[in-house]
Amino acid sequence: MSEQTMLNDNLIEFSKALASKAAVPGGGGASSVAGALGAALASMVCNLTIGKKKYAQYEGDLERILARAEELRRKLLNGVDDDARAFEPLSKAYSIPKDDPERDNIMESALKDACDAPIMIMELCCEAIVLHRELAEKGSAIAISDVGVGAILCKAALTGASLNVVINVKSMRDRSYAEGLMLKLDNMLKKYGQMADETYRMVLTRIA
Amino acid sequence: MSEQTMLNDNLIEFSKALASKAAVPGGGGASSVAGALGAALASMVCNLTIGKKKYAQYEGDLERILARAEELRRKLLNGVDDDARAFEPLSKAYSIPKDDPERDNIMESALKDACDAPIMIMELCCEAIVLHRELAEKGSAIAISDVGVGAILCKAALTGASLNVVINVKSMRDRSYAEGLMLKLDNMLKKYGQMADETYRMVLTRIA
Repeated sequence: MSEQTMLNDNLIEFSKALASKAAVPGGGGASSVAGALGAALASMVCNLTIGKKKYAQYEGDLERILARAEELRRKLLNGVDDDARAFEPLSKAYSIPKDDPERDNIMESALKDACDAPIMIMELCCEAIVLHRELAEKGSAIAISDVGVGAILCKAALTGASLNVVINVKSMRDRSYAEGLMLKLDNMLKKYGQMADETYRMVLTRIA
Repeated sequence: MSEQTMLNDNLIEFSKALASKAAVPGGGGASSVAGALGAALASMVCNLTIGKKKYAQYEGDLERILARAEELRRKLLNGVDDDARAFEPLSKAYSIPKDDPERDNIMESALKDACDAPIMIMELCCEAIVLHRELAEKGSAIAISDVGVGAILCKAALTGASLNVVINVKSMRDRSYAEGLMLKLDNMLKKYGQMADETYRMVLTRIA
């Protein structure tokens, strides 16, 4: 698994693999792709705005946003493979016989590790939302709807990835660790969900 | 353009094309992919539930949902190309000199036509949301988070595609046609947005 990548799949192949009963890709991988497309739209808006006289005052900001959006796009694409790799040990842990004395510890550790990739995906999406929020003011009017789509896709990816954390958190025995994670999640969902909604409303205002 | 397809692009290529300043793919294509991934997750949940004794009572429903979800997945993937094709005449209309007496009529017609693909994408996403709503009750517990991710992605795709309609509607001279379209849009966003939110909440309840 660690040597494989789904990033060479074309759109038809990837969607078919997602539709199948295969363990991966699943909701985590789909969320990561949606986040990557959201970040790509931030890049697109920068590419359509940079060099336009009307937005010359934002040139430096746009170059910075573009560089970061491209990094986020690449990392979110890699998130598809990261999420798949994280699933393997968890899947193995679930297959350990229930009377094996080692099972609980292996499972607990696998559950914690399986949260890493979706949390990383969430953090990258939050960053992409911040970029779209800025683009809602600095992006060219001809691409403003794409800022709205980007923010919406990143919010969906953020929320989708969070479900993959929630489902693992529920099975953890270490409740204090689990509750700390849930608090972190809720804060991210609230703060950046609202920022994405605000971005969408700003876009609607600029279109009107 | 009409002979070309972006569906053979792998995930890296598609996200790069999206990030570029090329006219297509844009927010419409990205929304369509997100919707296709959302529909694919409905298929996946069916594939992971069908044949399980615990859900035998839903077997007929699950087969029906699977068949429809696979159709929606394919149509939403094709939406990427449909959206790109719809953009070409509009792009040509924008390049007609402003003093050309034909410009207004050509533009009006191109604006109306350019709404067809995103409206179709919206309708397909609404249908996919209805499937996820049903799967929130009938899908296997082991795949329940994927129902939530699917509903969220379809709602984002629905909202994203709507922005591509809104931006064209704003430029239409036929205000009665434009307002009729906006009313239709608002109703879809409200009804199916709420259904997606309800699905997400049901998923959280089943996880807890």
